[in-house]
Amino acid sequence: MDFPEHLAIQSHSIDILPRYVDTDQAGVVHHSVYPVWFELGRTELLRVNHVAYKDLEAAGVFFVVAQLNVRYRRAALYDEKLELETNFSRVTASRIENSYKLIRCSDGVVLAEGTTILACVSDEGKVRRVPKFMYPE
Amino acid sequence: MDFPEHLAIQSHSIDILPRYVDTDQAGVVHHSVYPVWFELGRTELLRVNHVAYKDLEAAGVFFVVAQLNVRYRRAALYDEKLELETNFSRVTASRIENSYKLIRCSDGVVLAEGTTILACVSDEGKVRRVPKFMYPE
Amino acid sequence: MDFPEHLAIQSHSIDILPRYVDTDQAGVVHHSVYPVWFELGRTELLRVNHVAYKDLEAAGVFFVVAQLNVRYRRAALYDEKLELETNFSRVTASRIENSYKLIRCSDGVVLAEGTTILACVSDEGKVRRVPKFMYPE
Amino acid sequence: MDFPEHLAIQSHSIDILPRYVDTDQAGVVHHSVYPVWFELGRTELLRVNHVAYKDLEAAGVFFVVAQLNVRYRRAALYDEKLELETNFSRVTASRIENSYKLIRCSDGVVLAEGTTILACVSDEGKVRRVPKFMYPE
Repeated sequence: MDFPEHLAIQSHSIDILPRYVDTDQAGVVHHSVYPVWFELGRTELLRVNHVAYKDLEAAGVFFVVAQLNVRYRRAALYDEKLELETNFSRVTASRIENSYKLIRCSDGVVLAEGTTILACVSDEGKVRRVPKFMYPE
Repeated sequence: MDFPEHLAIQSHSIDILPRYVDTDQAGVVHHSVYPVWFELGRTELLRVNHVAYKDLEAAGVFFVVAQLNVRYRRAALYDEKLELETNFSRVTASRIENSYKLIRCSDGVVLAEGTTILACVSDEGKVRRVPKFMYPE
Repeated sequence: MDFPEHLAIQSHSIDILPRYVDTDQAGVVHHSVYPVWFELGRTELLRVNHVAYKDLEAAGVFFVVAQLNVRYRRAALYDEKLELETNFSRVTASRIENSYKLIRCSDGVVLAEGTTILACVSDEGKVRRVPKFMYPE
Repeated sequence: MDFPEHLAIQSHSIDILPRYVDTDQAGVVHHSVYPVWFELGRTELLRVNHVAYKDLEAAGVFFVVAQLNVRYRRAALYDEKLELETNFSRVTASRIENSYKLIRCSDGVVLAEGTTILACVSDEGKVRRVPKFMYPE
């Protein structure tokens, strides 16, 4: 695979449109959906840096979530346009830290914030170094 | 692995308790959850026959769903005890056909019925024969 | 709400990009994800007809899946661009029938086909007529 | 509804058997499944205290997740028996704090730990007091 020399873009936003299946009987998006959105945010933050996560996997580089924190402030509703901002907050040889902000497009209100820490593992699940191009000198 | 000589038990029922996450904002279990329950039913029907699906996979035998049919008659509700009856309806060297009946325990009403057809594939995803012990002479 | 006089557009395609969470340990998209994609297809087919499903719900018109059929032909893979074509195949006062075709964009191969039948219910879950603008004279 | 005078039991364990659909193509349970398990743990911790969450909802008492923290230590695998221990760590008039420990039954290894903070809201989504029987004097 052909990876970039470094990750030039540190922040990226994607559109989210909550699906019917994402809601629960309280009439709001179930809280377990947010980690899935965060994962989408990470994937697209990599992609704007010219890295497809599947190419990392093909190269034997897997990332596993080691830590997840979410603060839910307001409910997200079905079919209500949201924007998810994903940032690299800290990347080292041993882990990738991301932060997230979920914003309701209609009024700019922050619905949720979160952070994740990813560890890098080989295809056998053994801890390994984050590829050099992913972290600053 | 040590598989039985044949599948002696043709029908098996399991208890299902719909979870909060399974519901949607219409206040009922989302229809995409039923295929997951059917899969649980198949797994447990195999297990009462002394076959763990993971042991089949370890032996290079994978089953993929080739066809799915569901008739939804009444809504399933959160935390309302259900019983899922799973049957082998036809098993040949090339496929496994199952049928399902989802029953509300409180009054015996049938909430849904379904069928699936599974094909057998190798670990490389190539079609292969169903293991001999799984189908009658 | 302000609904159109009739549904002018009978077929619509959307892009699908399978997410990591949609895959299972066999390395393919789990079969229970397809009904969720079909629902997305229906939602967007309504939207190009200037109908938001949430506006129908706000007007007391709910659609529930009464029947689902899926034929899975080839596996769908993580992050591999797909196109889902959704059609109205038959709409009457009592039900809406849709058909679906899931196509792999890279080579045009049909991965799956399906149909659903929806019934129309009131906010109390009672069967009611499909709104007049949704079916032909 | 008939609720108990107080919550006598502060800790409860349930069995978890990861389903096929819970896995992803890395061959492990997807990290977004753990919050769902935590919710199951809370539900059953309430139930051993003679409180069904659906009865709380029927009485106009809803709990929403305000904060979620998970530390993932080891991967959970398909069909491998787990035990989830759920505790009330702190309950006040304004919130319920739970902690969780997910244990692999075969060897007692802790796979994950977590905490949640729940806020109490009315059926209109307004913040309200936690019912008196749920928190100590």
